[in-house]
Amino acid sequence: MTLNIALAMPENTARGVFPSRSLDPLEPSLKILSRDPIQDFHSPEGRALVSEADVLLTGWGCPVIDEAVLDAAPRLRYVLHAAGSIKHHIGEACWERGIQVSSAADANAIPVAEYTVAMIILANKRVLQIARTLHTSRMEVLPEQLFPDMGNYRKRVGIIGASRIGRHVIRLLAPYDLDIVVADPFLSQEEASAWGVGLVDLERLITDSDIISLHAPSLPSTKNLINGDLIRGMRPGATFINTARGELVDQDALLARVEQGDLYAILDVTTPWVLPSDSRFYTNPNVLLTPHVAGSLGNELERMAASAVNEALRLSRGEPLRFPVRAEDLVFTA
Amino acid sequence: MTLNIALAMPENTARGVFPSRSLDPLEPSLKILSRDPIQDFHSPEGRALVSEADVLLTGWGCPVIDEAVLDAAPRLRYVLHAAGSIKHHIGEACWERGIQVSSAADANAIPVAEYTVAMIILANKRVLQIARTLHTSRMEVLPEQLFPDMGNYRKRVGIIGASRIGRHVIRLLAPYDLDIVVADPFLSQEEASAWGVGLVDLERLITDSDIISLHAPSLPSTKNLINGDLIRGMRPGATFINTARGELVDQDALLARVEQGDLYAILDVTTPWVLPSDSRFYTNPNVLLTPHVAGSLGNELERMAASAVNEALRLSRGEPLRFPVRAEDLVFTA
Repeated sequence: MTLNIALAMPENTARGVFPSRSLDPLEPSLKILSRDPIQDFHSPEGRALVSEADVLLTGWGCPVIDEAVLDAAPRLRYVLHAAGSIKHHIGEACWERGIQVSSAADANAIPVAEYTVAMIILANKRVLQIARTLHTSRMEVLPEQLFPDMGNYRKRVGIIGASRIGRHVIRLLAPYDLDIVVADPFLSQEEASAWGVGLVDLERLITDSDIISLHAPSLPSTKNLINGDLIRGMRPGATFINTARGELVDQDALLARVEQGDLYAILDVTTPWVLPSDSRFYTNPNVLLTPHVAGSLGNELERMAASAVNEALRLSRGEPLRFPVRAEDLVFTA
Repeated sequence: MTLNIALAMPENTARGVFPSRSLDPLEPSLKILSRDPIQDFHSPEGRALVSEADVLLTGWGCPVIDEAVLDAAPRLRYVLHAAGSIKHHIGEACWERGIQVSSAADANAIPVAEYTVAMIILANKRVLQIARTLHTSRMEVLPEQLFPDMGNYRKRVGIIGASRIGRHVIRLLAPYDLDIVVADPFLSQEEASAWGVGLVDLERLITDSDIISLHAPSLPSTKNLINGDLIRGMRPGATFINTARGELVDQDALLARVEQGDLYAILDVTTPWVLPSDSRFYTNPNVLLTPHVAGSLGNELERMAASAVNEALRLSRGEPLRFPVRAEDLVFTA
């Protein structure tokens, strides 16, 4: 039986994430009830569409799918989200009724890993520091005299958190001549060995790594995970990369350490979200700030749409979801 | 029979490229005649070592191995160079006498490819432009409003030259969701298909690529290969990356185009080598200059040493060289 599929998300999201061509692969395996998204489940059009839908494709800003919505959606069995976090629109009632949920968190992790790997390679080689020296001095620069320890051969990269993003970082770094160590209380020695990485505790990762990249979830238990003691224990010349959340890091201690001059920091996230204009992070030469760009932006939203569309195609072939989300997983994810 | 091996290079090179531990893997498969390098083939120590050597490990600044040296080296059959170019120390006589030569050009290509891939990922996402905007504005920056076309999903990357470096770039980009096209008059359709890349002519690569990365050799025939017409034909918003040689590019046309504001350039090499201090390349916001750092520097020299040591170990096991250099190859290499 052909599954009926509908979209549920604000018009804006649909325009950015689901250009019309991105839905084309669904036909004829599934029946697209409408290419216009449901924006309100309780409008007449919304009620009409949801009453016939077996599958909902959802995106950022999708209204909550609660008991009232499910009462009006007798056929609904699957919600496929074309973004990372499903916390805001999957109501308790979805789990209670056994709705199967999938997310594009894996696709969303890819650009973060790509940003991280690019920054690791440039940081080990001091490329951006050297570029700035060249642009400001406008004369011959001798890189090895500035940075005798430069280079990407057998440097140690420490990955904090074998999260989705951490795993993609490990995958992308596999072809490089780098030693990778991972700290994650939930990672087994078998898995680490299978990936060809070392499993170490956080303290050892911090003291032994040339690059320290943070990929842990933001939870009450991980607030201030990278505390002052750990920051002071990072090796001279190390680079700390944060693409996770500012709250995971003691930012005062981090600022003090970069101002000491022997630590580099690449920060895609900070606390607060937008730093005050007098923050010394803006002006410290050892700090590179980016405004939360590592995640999916621009054309990378289409990867999440493609991921959700692929899930729908799997369902149409009777296959299980590739990226299912279970209620019990939510404790550990952002 | 155990092969005798000696080093030939200036003391400086030996210290930087061959720390003592790097030679340890040679023993006991080969006999290291001395861990002190031959610096002059005509000194008493030099003559004594070369007279017994089957294999020479050479490095940057190795004196020329000419007929007189070979006359004093009756057992010499292999010269294994721990750097990229063998032009300066392999005399005609080596080819005439059938000396087998190997180079670490492949190992030397790896860091250039790593630099290139990191820059491609950051350029497609406009990360460094956005970072500069954030550091200078010190207020909230909305990346997608600045650069609606940002992102690394299905952008097209054009590789000019399926050289050693070009091939490593293709290998490292394989796990990314990017379309790769290559222009190289010597590349076959079969090879391109085997690598999963498109084979196109240079003109089409130039007009169709979001990133254009130059990996062609510097030869009389390639001088000004990227001429004014090609530079003016690059698509608005494209990024041009040059890690090859400044002479390959019409630099006046390139400057004019970046000053027009719709082309980005990442230049690890320029003509002249060090730009005059009033060059507008230093100040144009769409240009990132680095002072020839993409190649092997710092600890990356050890990768070239390891490559030469591996070649010696292959010989000790009776295996052929992995990276042989033949006289006729020299026409096409830098």
